[in-house]
Amino acid sequence: MLQTQPLKGFRDFLPEQAIKRQQLIQTIREIFELHGFDPLETPALEYAETLLGKYGNEADKLLYLFEDHGKRSVGLRYDQTVPLSRVVAQYPDLPMPFKRYQIQPVWRAENTQKGRFREFLQCDIDTVGSSSPLADAEIAVCVLAVAQAVRLPSPVLVLNDRTIFDRIGLTTKEIIIIDKLDKIGDEKVREELKLVGGEVSVEKYLQLMDAELTERLVEIIKYLTANGYERGKDFFFNPYLARGLDYYTSTIFELKDSAYPAGSLAGGGRYDKLIGSFSGKDLPAVGVAFGFDRIMDARRELAIETTKKTATAVLITCFDPDTVGIVTETASYLRSARIATEIYLDATVKLERQLKYADKKGIPFVLIIGPEEKAQGVVNLKNLTTRQEMRGVLLEDVAGIIATQSKR
Amino acid sequence: MLQTQPLKGFRDFLPEQAIKRQQLIQTIREIFELHGFDPLETPALEYAETLLGKYGNEADKLLYLFEDHGKRSVGLRYDQTVPLSRVVAQYPDLPMPFKRYQIQPVWRAENTQKGRFREFLQCDIDTVGSSSPLADAEIAVCVLAVAQAVRLPSPVLVLNDRTIFDRIGLTTKEIIIIDKLDKIGDEKVREELKLVGGEVSVEKYLQLMDAELTERLVEIIKYLTANGYERGKDFFFNPYLARGLDYYTSTIFELKDSAYPAGSLAGGGRYDKLIGSFSGKDLPAVGVAFGFDRIMDARRELAIETTKKTATAVLITCFDPDTVGIVTETASYLRSARIATEIYLDATVKLERQLKYADKKGIPFVLIIGPEEKAQGVVNLKNLTTRQEMRGVLLEDVAGIIATQSKR
Repeated sequence: MLQTQPLKGFRDFLPEQAIKRQQLIQTIREIFELHGFDPLETPALEYAETLLGKYGNEADKLLYLFEDHGKRSVGLRYDQTVPLSRVVAQYPDLPMPFKRYQIQPVWRAENTQKGRFREFLQCDIDTVGSSSPLADAEIAVCVLAVAQAVRLPSPVLVLNDRTIFDRIGLTTKEIIIIDKLDKIGDEKVREELKLVGGEVSVEKYLQLMDAELTERLVEIIKYLTANGYERGKDFFFNPYLARGLDYYTSTIFELKDSAYPAGSLAGGGRYDKLIGSFSGKDLPAVGVAFGFDRIMDARRELAIETTKKTATAVLITCFDPDTVGIVTETASYLRSARIATEIYLDATVKLERQLKYADKKGIPFVLIIGPEEKAQGVVNLKNLTTRQEMRGVLLEDVAGIIATQSKR
Repeated sequence: MLQTQPLKGFRDFLPEQAIKRQQLIQTIREIFELHGFDPLETPALEYAETLLGKYGNEADKLLYLFEDHGKRSVGLRYDQTVPLSRVVAQYPDLPMPFKRYQIQPVWRAENTQKGRFREFLQCDIDTVGSSSPLADAEIAVCVLAVAQAVRLPSPVLVLNDRTIFDRIGLTTKEIIIIDKLDKIGDEKVREELKLVGGEVSVEKYLQLMDAELTERLVEIIKYLTANGYERGKDFFFNPYLARGLDYYTSTIFELKDSAYPAGSLAGGGRYDKLIGSFSGKDLPAVGVAFGFDRIMDARRELAIETTKKTATAVLITCFDPDTVGIVTETASYLRSARIATEIYLDATVKLERQLKYADKKGIPFVLIIGPEEKAQGVVNLKNLTTRQEMRGVLLEDVAGIIATQSKR
């Protein structure tokens, strides 16, 4: 007997989970496209040097690297920013600005822990080739639109601009400490800063309290307001937000929801230097990555996810070999009416067991055609959720009944 | 400067291609679900022994195998049948029959050649746990429904039953020769058979001409007919069809289209022994895999694919900083009406260049709001495909105009 578990840190998604994932992907994809982002797909494997280019050699512990059959050093995609940078360098004829979204899995050889996996889906939008604040603002608008579409109850977009840190003269070390404010509190931040740079560091930290908006942030806020979003409610400025990653050069954002304190649901910012390391010339860029697993988790916790266990809407039972013909025709009719239909495959099985199968799978409706119904040209329909039985229903009414009585 | 090409045998899908792929996946997914198949997702990486279990050690040349950070021998998914078998063994509580579809990439370290890649998408449906001919028939019906949905002009499903070979006593070697009939012709088949088994082999081959339908095929054909498909037109019985793979135990099918002679577009069959090697107990199964790249290629050759170059329907130009507010509100309005809308991000760029950008990207409509239009509360709309200009259009009419004038 062979090993049947998935590898540690990897997951099987059985139908009930896979349906929720597909539905969420579809929702996110639709919002991305409504905001003018086009899909991009890149290979799972890249040259190792491409992957190491951004993250440096310390990162190779987290990368799945190996030698392929042609003795090339290759590795699995670690994020979608590196492939994007490579693509922009490889195809110089891409219309600029290049607005793309990418929804593909990435692989990281991390220590596994709650909510951290070695294979997970990333959902990114990026606009490459524009330094306009409108580009940042459009990303922000898209993030808020996704938050609404996935039905987060109280989404808030937190904004900052890392040039504020430069203006004040904060060092990377200091920024990393300040970034922990939410977690460790004001007192602890001051203590740690004192250890790193003495009173001067604390002084700089205090300046953040009165930090003023940058010109770029003013523009972004103007735009968000014109889109009907309210400062202090839908979005706010937080001069302490840092987002660890060093490659952000200006705007940074994070999507949070007070109903889900476990962490941010999306994050990103402007990175005007990174793409240059691939293309040889600097190209301004701004983007955001959605934490797909986080959003899945939030929807589960907040009970706003679909409760569908199967994509199938109706099971047609079949317990008499003589009715196979009419069962078939009925299935064909319902499918042409866009009702997802399954036929019970074994006519020798008792009706009761067929109903149990529907129940176990979570199919909401069962359609029964016995010899009597066949003779009368009608069907019996049973709603397994409400337990309501509808006898002698005309076939042409079935699709309508199922559509109205189905929940999302 | 870093390497920017994708690895040999791997592909970047820029928006124009990615859109066609996404549309095709969506169509196929919808048909799968209409036929009662639910999604399953499995990890990209599996234990090497799991992958080698089915294919044996000669297959490791085609597998991407390596050692992970925990010194485990792992490898990239080679097909979706092995993960399916593993999943069925791992989760004994799955409702049976288990009808699942899976649309994920697989990786094969093959020699690259025209139309053969090292990373490609597989689209599979399988029904595990039913030996009923209805299970085979439902797969066949779903294949024909997909063929229709992806707009193949003249799809034909070819059917056979490998138990016919057993009845006649054909050996694997003989079967492999007969399978080449389409390619090498009758005369060559006879010659090769003679070399392998003399006149006896040829004798057996001749018996195939008069081979009768098996009971299972009779049932499947009855069912296809009840679904409105015509024998000799939509499907036919071909006793010479073998489909190399040894693991098929009975029904085999192949989807072809005479308008696309380059090869079959889907293939599969019944395999009642394979899953047992994972789960320890035999479980009957039947399924089919669609050649996603083949279907993409057929749609391109036959000009039945979408001609969309971008998901975006309209570009709102912006050439006056004073109009940013109205541009924003307009975008917000159109997006709420489900029109994919892009805003030109730089108001300092001349209108002419903005129109060129739309043209290059293939955005079909451009919306122009100058100061005059802003004052009058109207917009100008330009259809870049027909070059028609519509002046003084009310915003509430724009979504309707775009929807009616858009092609798929």
